[in-house]
Amino acid sequence: MSSVALLGAGNVATHLGAALVANGHRVTGVYSRTAASADRLAGHLGCPGTDCLDRLTPGEWCIFAVKDDALPALAKRWTALHPDTFCLHTAGSVPMDVFAGHADRYGVLYPLQTFSKARAVDFRRVPCFVEANGAPQLETLTALARTLSDRVVALPSERRRYLHLAAVLACNFANHCYDLAARLLEREGLPFDLLLPLIDETAAKVHDLAPREAQTGPAVRYDREVINRQLDLLADRPELRQLYAAMSQSIHQYARQND
Amino acid sequence: MSSVALLGAGNVATHLGAALVANGHRVTGVYSRTAASADRLAGHLGCPGTDCLDRLTPGEWCIFAVKDDALPALAKRWTALHPDTFCLHTAGSVPMDVFAGHADRYGVLYPLQTFSKARAVDFRRVPCFVEANGAPQLETLTALARTLSDRVVALPSERRRYLHLAAVLACNFANHCYDLAARLLEREGLPFDLLLPLIDETAAKVHDLAPREAQTGPAVRYDREVINRQLDLLADRPELRQLYAAMSQSIHQYARQND
Repeated sequence: MSSVALLGAGNVATHLGAALVANGHRVTGVYSRTAASADRLAGHLGCPGTDCLDRLTPGEWCIFAVKDDALPALAKRWTALHPDTFCLHTAGSVPMDVFAGHADRYGVLYPLQTFSKARAVDFRRVPCFVEANGAPQLETLTALARTLSDRVVALPSERRRYLHLAAVLACNFANHCYDLAARLLEREGLPFDLLLPLIDETAAKVHDLAPREAQTGPAVRYDREVINRQLDLLADRPELRQLYAAMSQSIHQYARQND
Repeated sequence: MSSVALLGAGNVATHLGAALVANGHRVTGVYSRTAASADRLAGHLGCPGTDCLDRLTPGEWCIFAVKDDALPALAKRWTALHPDTFCLHTAGSVPMDVFAGHADRYGVLYPLQTFSKARAVDFRRVPCFVEANGAPQLETLTALARTLSDRVVALPSERRRYLHLAAVLACNFANHCYDLAARLLEREGLPFDLLLPLIDETAAKVHDLAPREAQTGPAVRYDREVINRQLDLLADRPELRQLYAAMSQSIHQYARQND
């Protein structure tokens, strides 16, 4: 099994760290900008936490699970200290080349999932996309990733960006639609859990049907009367009204392309 | 058990008809504008189908599960023939009063779910919202609805519209986000099922966390670099680009309200 230094203590670091430890790997330490965050995660993983990069014990691997804009500078500082560790980052939209010229062996381990600290996730079911700066490195990285997940796919940075964009649409934007619905019901004093069977079925449907075939509702039928009535309900919330109109139009437009 | 004449042969009529028959009720017949649709559903329900309203055998109940804009005229024609049946419609955004002056007993049975003919649904888990033109009528209707669903809630038209709007957001718009993601992956030659664990987890999360707490991704972090890179990927698709920008801004704006 491997030893891994973890940079970052956010949602991805938390779940990836837990998956590493659960599968017999050793996390040598956790670095975070804030000592409290580093200590919290380090406590869970049974290793030291620190807000000082110099004090982080290197492992065979170093995984950067930090905000995208913090990654280049942090990668530079870390590789100056430990040029021999195999460096990975976990970001969907950052090219692997962020490590080029700084480390000998480097790559990407991108877990395609939405992680919140408050919720356990079965990491074995999380598709992981890997990329490395050479065939032997990719082999080593794939072997590491396979100890964590049942679905490991090699994918270059160029294509990973589209996967990340698709994930933002299918997850963050879909969740925002739930949020808009939740806030609307809250205003009307109706409980959000009324929508849960609908939300579950909407997600379950696309296991069997392509989303374009699964679509229902006023926009795909182009039921103008309902659409206009719903726009009227949003008269006092111009931004939401505009979003509703844009989404309805987009649904209708794609539906016409299918005809 | 009751006898029910069914007007409409679409997604709602199909699933509601099946739930009625499965729970021991008798469907007296199915009317649809097109004989083929009427016959198809009638075949499943073991009753006659027709495209001629005069030939539809009335039951104690008549359920209108038709497009919203077809409802007023059809309700008028039916009640002129059979003023004594208890008339129901299933629409989220049509007021109950569409029947006023035409029938003695009338109401609404709104099942909050996304129905596609190709997919079986457990109707017992579908929340059903009921409303009727008087207390005894509401009691009778509630009893009927309870034979079909474990969650029957009385709700006036005025509030049902907001529930319907919330359903459009949480279901149709969320599914459209899946569709946009699916099309993007298709263009890149990546299989859609890579996203299924993410879609499932996004839906499962909001059983435990409010959607606002469940949100992840670049927009809620306001990670400008990722947002701009993703906007760049959509440079050749101005409409989708605009939708992406509007959704990201909306996510960020609501997140700031929570701070």
